[in-house]
Amino acid sequence: MKDQDYMKLAIQLAQNTLGQTSPNPVVGAVLVKEGRIIGMGAHLKAGEDHAEVQAFKMAKKGEAENGTLYVTLEPCSHFGKTPPCVHAIIKHKVKRVVVATLDPNPLVSGNGIKQLEDAGITVEVGLLEQEAIDLNKFFLHFIKHKTPYVTIKCAMTMDGRIATTSGDSKWITSSEAREDVHQNRTIYDAILVGVNTVIADNPLLTTRLTNGEGLSPKRIILDSNLRIPESAALLHDKKAETILLVGKNVADERIGQVESDFVKVIRLKTDRPEVEEVLSVLGGLGITSLYVEGGRGVHESFLKANCVNELHLYLAPKIVGGNFSSFGELGITNMQSAMKLDLQSVQQIGPDLKITAKLIEKESC
Amino acid sequence: MKDQDYMKLAIQLAQNTLGQTSPNPVVGAVLVKEGRIIGMGAHLKAGEDHAEVQAFKMAKKGEAENGTLYVTLEPCSHFGKTPPCVHAIIKHKVKRVVVATLDPNPLVSGNGIKQLEDAGITVEVGLLEQEAIDLNKFFLHFIKHKTPYVTIKCAMTMDGRIATTSGDSKWITSSEAREDVHQNRTIYDAILVGVNTVIADNPLLTTRLTNGEGLSPKRIILDSNLRIPESAALLHDKKAETILLVGKNVADERIGQVESDFVKVIRLKTDRPEVEEVLSVLGGLGITSLYVEGGRGVHESFLKANCVNELHLYLAPKIVGGNFSSFGELGITNMQSAMKLDLQSVQQIGPDLKITAKLIEKESC
Repeated sequence: MKDQDYMKLAIQLAQNTLGQTSPNPVVGAVLVKEGRIIGMGAHLKAGEDHAEVQAFKMAKKGEAENGTLYVTLEPCSHFGKTPPCVHAIIKHKVKRVVVATLDPNPLVSGNGIKQLEDAGITVEVGLLEQEAIDLNKFFLHFIKHKTPYVTIKCAMTMDGRIATTSGDSKWITSSEAREDVHQNRTIYDAILVGVNTVIADNPLLTTRLTNGEGLSPKRIILDSNLRIPESAALLHDKKAETILLVGKNVADERIGQVESDFVKVIRLKTDRPEVEEVLSVLGGLGITSLYVEGGRGVHESFLKANCVNELHLYLAPKIVGGNFSSFGELGITNMQSAMKLDLQSVQQIGPDLKITAKLIEKESC
Repeated sequence: MKDQDYMKLAIQLAQNTLGQTSPNPVVGAVLVKEGRIIGMGAHLKAGEDHAEVQAFKMAKKGEAENGTLYVTLEPCSHFGKTPPCVHAIIKHKVKRVVVATLDPNPLVSGNGIKQLEDAGITVEVGLLEQEAIDLNKFFLHFIKHKTPYVTIKCAMTMDGRIATTSGDSKWITSSEAREDVHQNRTIYDAILVGVNTVIADNPLLTTRLTNGEGLSPKRIILDSNLRIPESAALLHDKKAETILLVGKNVADERIGQVESDFVKVIRLKTDRPEVEEVLSVLGGLGITSLYVEGGRGVHESFLKANCVNELHLYLAPKIVGGNFSSFGELGITNMQSAMKLDLQSVQQIGPDLKITAKLIEKESC
């Protein structure tokens, strides 16, 4: 196998742990000696072994000597919850280290590389760098902005409608597409919806996959006046934490009625949630990624605030006409001023299309 | 090459003549002897040589004897504008004929095959049959219904809007997507738009390709009250025929003002055009395929009449919000009653996506 193949494997190891390492990045490592893989590893959970250490543990004693280590992110050089990986690499007498991308933190970026080189190890940086950056887009965004990476998910018909004229929206997309949404929930730290969605649909907002497995992210509800019904499933289902963001004047007594061991209410500085403050509060809670599931008004305010990184559009092969358009009113008058998207992928999921796109010039949050 | 490869070539020969053989089908033929292609042909224009005859003309004299002929449609067995192809095939002593699909006319379907077999020629039918049927979808629809095959083209943003809140729509899609639209115009017999589109945009509705070539289809305008402005480009540009379909009460005098050597006005039976009558009138003019370019009201009435075979949706990677949704009001209240689409293809054209889909259960026109 070529260098690139080993690094691709390291990326795949990391990719499959997305959602379970937060607030840490995902990292994969592959240890190779004389053309054979002698160790593989991925960071599985914050506070536990790093990917490099996992790979060394898999190898036989002394076997890593003169081997090559492929790792998706610059090995750490500082003591955190675990000892620095560069010490382990030097101790195992690896001959060569191939790194996809540097640590994003400018204060430590390059330090790991330098310590390895000082120990006489050959280090190469930049193999499959863009893939490695995409892999950790949540982490990299969070490190830079201290707010979560925001993805809006929207299911619509091919003519861009999210409901019929009568408001009926069950279901636009197929069970396969809805399973994909649940799969996505597992990789985000939190889901966000508006209280109107809670009132209309009484959703659980947990991850429910065909095989039963899947991490459930935190559930964030924007609820200016704390209108959430007492009977809302979100207030009783304990599978995930529920956090209600409410207006500044909501009474302590009302908050006390809603809070419990897994339901938390946070008062914002304004009457109605400002998107910037919402993201800053969520960032403060260590939430690195946010999956915004609607409704339309919530999508509208996030888009207007220019605080969306990515869109997941599920397009069902049907048309319904009418006025229930996605994303509401964005106040754009000239076609030239449209919000520009960078198309990432188009997949067929069951009978539906999933379009993944990034917002261009999204720099404000 | 395998049988399938030769037939694929015959289909490609035919495919590239789409739009220039109407009202005839497109047909391709490949003549093979001892593993070498000795002749190829495609029907180029109604009244001229059929594909089989073209292939025989390319071969050397006597060379076709004991050869194999691959042809996308059953060879004709009757005298039309040209003599029957089965005579030519028998005369050239071909040993074997491979046919993709039978003649759709039930009165003659199978006759060509029978005459060849009676002459001792081995005939096989059905190779790449679905491709051959798709290839002639316009012709096959027209033979069956006596009305044109209808395709709606719509350019929209990723959130399904055809303009901003202020009505600005120039341009939604890229120049590459607009070139693709012009390329499509070359394969349809006619383009149709509503008079509001003529008043708003003053379009030429001709084919304008980068290389300058391209057939221009007939231009059909729905104009109940003959409101088309005297200055409309369509009334002065002679590159294609313009046909205005008007309400029953439009005065002879007004019609006389508009008509010219290339502008024709047809009075319908009602005040406002009924889609079924429009299609029946166009079918009567020998128009086998119709490319409906809008506006929204025209799309709405064609969809409501259940007279659309195919949709071409060009989705630009941008979002604008607002109320200018594609396709207007279709009167659908339950999501379960949505008009169902059968996705044919998704292509990237420049930065845009082109989604091609057929309407399911479209049988009324």
